Amino acid sequence: MNHFSFAAVLVIGASSSFAASPSWSLMPWPKKVEAAGAPLRLDRDFRIEFTAAPPARLERAARRFLSQLTVETGVPITSSRTTRLVVECCAKPDAADRLGDDEAYTLHVSTTQARLEAETVTGALRGLQTLLQLARPDAQGFAIAGVRVEDSPRFPWRGLLLDVTSHFMPVAVIKRNLDAMEAVKLNVFHWHLTDDQGFRIESGVFPKLHTLGSAGDYYTRQEIRDVIDYAHDRGIRVVPEIDMPGHSGTWMIGYPELGSASGPYAIIPTFGVYDPTLDPTQDRVYTFIDELLGEISALFPDEYLHIGGDEVNGKHWKANAGIQKFIRERGLKNEAGLQAYFNRRVEAIVRKHGKKMMGWDEVLHPNLPRDIVVQSWRDHESLATAIKQGHPALLSFGYYLDHLDTSKVYYLVDPLGGPATGLSESEARGVLGGEACMWTEFVSPETVDSRIWPMTAAIAERLWSSRSVTDLASMFQRLDVVSRRLDWRGVRHNTNYESMLRRLSETAPLEDLRVLADAVEPLGIDGREITRTYSQSTPLNRFVDAARGESAAVRRAEAEAAAVSAGGSGSELERTFRSWRENAARLNAHFDGNALLKEAADVSRNLSRTGEIGLEALGRLRARQSSTEWATARLAELEALGRPQVEVRLVAVKPVRHLLMALQRAGK
Amino acid sequence: MNHFSFAAVLVIGASSSFAASPSWSLMPWPKKVEAAGAPLRLDRDFRIEFTAAPPARLERAARRFLSQLTVETGVPITSSRTTRLVVECCAKPDAADRLGDDEAYTLHVSTTQARLEAETVTGALRGLQTLLQLARPDAQGFAIAGVRVEDSPRFPWRGLLLDVTSHFMPVAVIKRNLDAMEAVKLNVFHWHLTDDQGFRIESGVFPKLHTLGSAGDYYTRQEIRDVIDYAHDRGIRVVPEIDMPGHSGTWMIGYPELGSASGPYAIIPTFGVYDPTLDPTQDRVYTFIDELLGEISALFPDEYLHIGGDEVNGKHWKANAGIQKFIRERGLKNEAGLQAYFNRRVEAIVRKHGKKMMGWDEVLHPNLPRDIVVQSWRDHESLATAIKQGHPALLSFGYYLDHLDTSKVYYLVDPLGGPATGLSESEARGVLGGEACMWTEFVSPETVDSRIWPMTAAIAERLWSSRSVTDLASMFQRLDVVSRRLDWRGVRHNTNYESMLRRLSETAPLEDLRVLADAVEPLGIDGREITRTYSQSTPLNRFVDAARGESAAVRRAEAEAAAVSAGGSGSELERTFRSWRENAARLNAHFDGNALLKEAADVSRNLSRTGEIGLEALGRLRARQSSTEWATARLAELEALGRPQVEVRLVAVKPVRHLLMALQRAGK
Repeated sequence: MNHFSFAAVLVIGASSSFAASPSWSLMPWPKKVEAAGAPLRLDRDFRIEFTAAPPARLERAARRFLSQLTVETGVPITSSRTTRLVVECCAKPDAADRLGDDEAYTLHVSTTQARLEAETVTGALRGLQTLLQLARPDAQGFAIAGVRVEDSPRFPWRGLLLDVTSHFMPVAVIKRNLDAMEAVKLNVFHWHLTDDQGFRIESGVFPKLHTLGSAGDYYTRQEIRDVIDYAHDRGIRVVPEIDMPGHSGTWMIGYPELGSASGPYAIIPTFGVYDPTLDPTQDRVYTFIDELLGEISALFPDEYLHIGGDEVNGKHWKANAGIQKFIRERGLKNEAGLQAYFNRRVEAIVRKHGKKMMGWDEVLHPNLPRDIVVQSWRDHESLATAIKQGHPALLSFGYYLDHLDTSKVYYLVDPLGGPATGLSESEARGVLGGEACMWTEFVSPETVDSRIWPMTAAIAERLWSSRSVTDLASMFQRLDVVSRRLDWRGVRHNTNYESMLRRLSETAPLEDLRVLADAVEPLGIDGREITRTYSQSTPLNRFVDAARGESAAVRRAEAEAAAVSAGGSGSELERTFRSWRENAARLNAHFDGNALLKEAADVSRNLSRTGEIGLEALGRLRARQSSTEWATARLAELEALGRPQVEVRLVAVKPVRHLLMALQRAGK
Repeated sequence: MNHFSFAAVLVIGASSSFAASPSWSLMPWPKKVEAAGAPLRLDRDFRIEFTAAPPARLERAARRFLSQLTVETGVPITSSRTTRLVVECCAKPDAADRLGDDEAYTLHVSTTQARLEAETVTGALRGLQTLLQLARPDAQGFAIAGVRVEDSPRFPWRGLLLDVTSHFMPVAVIKRNLDAMEAVKLNVFHWHLTDDQGFRIESGVFPKLHTLGSAGDYYTRQEIRDVIDYAHDRGIRVVPEIDMPGHSGTWMIGYPELGSASGPYAIIPTFGVYDPTLDPTQDRVYTFIDELLGEISALFPDEYLHIGGDEVNGKHWKANAGIQKFIRERGLKNEAGLQAYFNRRVEAIVRKHGKKMMGWDEVLHPNLPRDIVVQSWRDHESLATAIKQGHPALLSFGYYLDHLDTSKVYYLVDPLGGPATGLSESEARGVLGGEACMWTEFVSPETVDSRIWPMTAAIAERLWSSRSVTDLASMFQRLDVVSRRLDWRGVRHNTNYESMLRRLSETAPLEDLRVLADAVEPLGIDGREITRTYSQSTPLNRFVDAARGESAAVRRAEAEAAAVSAGGSGSELERTFRSWRENAARLNAHFDGNALLKEAADVSRNLSRTGEIGLEALGRLRARQSSTEWATARLAELEALGRPQVEVRLVAVKPVRHLLMALQRAGK
């Protein structure tokens, strides 16, 4: 598998009248893709030839490609006798990843071989992922679909933020998510490293930051470098976030002199916006930041450094007479003015260390240097405002994964949608892209994958593909395949689902637990703390944690309900409704004596009732039975059944609601 | 989680009249276990106290225990304020693992804390695993059942052989299986390292062994040491097997002068018994073996070294005039005599390097030193013969995992059963135990876990627990729990099942694929090569490979069919039969254009017919309808439906057969 030959080769394109099915499971959808005849068969024999000696990163990527191809297809590649893939790369020398890197590639798969062309290693990396997505079982075995692809991204900044402070995420979690990011062509890993809940990065200059600020769960510098290398191999930039002046309580545990209040400070194991804030009036604070950011800048090769800047509540500033005096004397008006003053000084420090500063949209104020990147999280409006003030900006509002919205909701959020619609063409170029944000207050290393995937693949498509790619049916079809294939990258959104369900009960049949958990979706961050207060040590082993962020089963049931309303048979839906109706009776014996499962007993009963209503609605629709009044009453009942409880929402009511509304319409 | 205090503590036993359920999911079942009151609640707080400073190995084990407890329960242990477990260990100093090590422990779990006592680290390791198995969800959350346990093993040698030559197994595969072995108290990892298909261990003295004999897939000495350390931490001995004089074709690729024929030799990618054999008449062969075994002996700390000795077909010896002359001149009678001569010389070499020799039962002949351990694979008889000749022996016949027998079959094989029943008490003490053998001709790193687990847990119980522990219903109930819990150790018999099914078809609903694959069992090694010849590069990505070694679903259906025959309602069985009956119609649309899935189309049709017959049989039984003739005809039909095809057996016929036979009986 480790044989690469470096001969210049000439490829003769195969012409064929074979009409390939255009149902390729590509995601994100390429700029241009067309069928090009019969597929390239996959067997043990697969040589990759480079038309010129490849950079080391590309050679490693080619090895990973072959190994991933074996993993995904189960076809062991043990021979390299015949050239199956020719890679023509790279006119541009390989270098560190930078914003705006050329990611374009072309791909042509014929029956004899595939040809991948790219100017850069990054482009070739993207093309290899497309090639992997084209491998699939067909009538003869496994094959790579015959296609021609021309591809490049719509936005240059396509990121995933991972909060490792609320809950620490081991390196293995990060790596498997980098693998998944590569699969869907995301290119920025935004690492939220410091907050009131933990200072997660080893500091050589101020060791009390990580030793006192983390209870032992932090990344060593060696681990940081390892993650950066791993990401670079996948064409992914790593942007560190060191949040200041708020969200910085863990700094002051070891260095209380940085704070605006007298302390003492401690790690805050609960979640929210807290008071500890750096004191922007003290020069020693800037000296400290200078040394710390110097260390961070040396460690992270990326040209951007994120200084957070969000959610400063101003309480400690208001309570501190010296700070108030400073605000008055300098004519800073108020706490916002003081933060602007702080940001300007920090920006100079960041610049001094050779980096460009970025921050959350609160950093935005009139006198900031224009190259500061603004990340909009509060609303779409702030993105347009930042752009109009001349800042590059990226959108995270609408991409908050902790809200546990559906793929559909995320997919329909466009960085140039909403208020940004009014931007001029040149202004629009300032919109760099977006970032999905995984805040982890209610997310553990065990559940994080199921909160990121597969939804983030829909966001990745939004950021890579043409704006016109919006067909939901196509997206969902491809998303289902991508979601399954992420298993092969070691992502655990599917496997942990099963094992977490099994943990709930050792006696209940797994298929019944699945039916129940597939019928619900967990509440997002807004609904989570209604019934209890969480801390970092609250077990996340409950029904709500096992349930996946989005139920594909309910989504399919909804689609079938819509089809039934339009005259479809609904046989599959009837089967689903039956399994719902039976659920409470089937699980009943397993609730008692098991606190973890018992919590879901009411949900199970509600599901059974939902199935019952669904079956009757289906019967009435089929019989064209006049049912307006009945349907109206059932809609009200459904409303109650679907009300949030034990921090989940019974989304199974959705397809039934479809049917009831169809009955209402039919009666009019 | 890293806090251990080393104070001497006094534990007051809790007395309680609470009657605990004796349904603990312990496996292997302890020598003595009794309820001891209410459980110990599990929360974030868990301190382990040692009554004396623990050896480093035990301290590591305690850390692993806490981390595994968190993984299995989802309860993050973030505080160590209160002592929950007192460990009183170890009167005997810690050392390398040896055959016969004391593995006894006692355990007492009360509402306030658990107490674990052991003379040795190994005993404490075993006790920690029992403690983990006692953790389970109850009416308040997670708890450790209140029990008193006294435990020690029946046999001192409880092993798993893994063949890494037919298919190479990466270190990660070995480690997760060592984790699983620890969970069920197995204590010997028998590493089959060399064969005609690969020489899998780096040799410093003869580097052409691994470079030419392995196509790059071998373990470095560092990896070997890593595996040994990993196993030692889990109280598992590592016994290397260097097979000779047969199964040694890979030696002669780089060193043809060792062979009995002129060569040339090559890696043999197919499977079976081949001709290449060392030449026992040449002194240079013994010099070579001496140097090689010197290196192996230095690398592996265990006192045993396995020299294979199996399946010498004698062809090259017969064809070699010099060898024939040697046999005549030395009065060795025949090839068997020559192998005996070879074994005696090799035994002297092994002894010189400070090791005890062991071999497969072919090594057995009258003039061998008595301390050579014989591993019986051909039959039960050979075990008794070896014992009667004064050799220690262990049983592998009946524990061959590549036969893909059921847990029940393996469970009922006793090392002292069969011909060994006649051994005297002192002879019986020579039976050291047994080893499950995983030969990997038709097994890849992806499928190996599903061929080892959970069946090997049943073998582990046979070798650890009292001979009287034979209740099958109890065993299966506990086996199901153990099987699921192995997921938490990273074993992939469940997770790879799902992803391999998904690989078969991207469009077919996973639950329908599951119904189909749960209805079959793959044929063992005897049935596998009927339809095709395999080599190391044959893809193992088919339906037969995805199917698990044993269908728990069919086993449960069989149990219910037996209950129905005795008057049970069979409602669950009816549901199962319905899902079978529907299977062909549901999967029908997905067979075409997909070679991997289409292969299973006939099986799916047969399953549907089986479900149909089952439903009718159930109806007739319920209606007490006279059906002798009908049942007889259906039994014949079932016979045909269950006939092996595409290398699987439709075991779904088994519960239906139960019902038909009940109908026949009812008619008489």
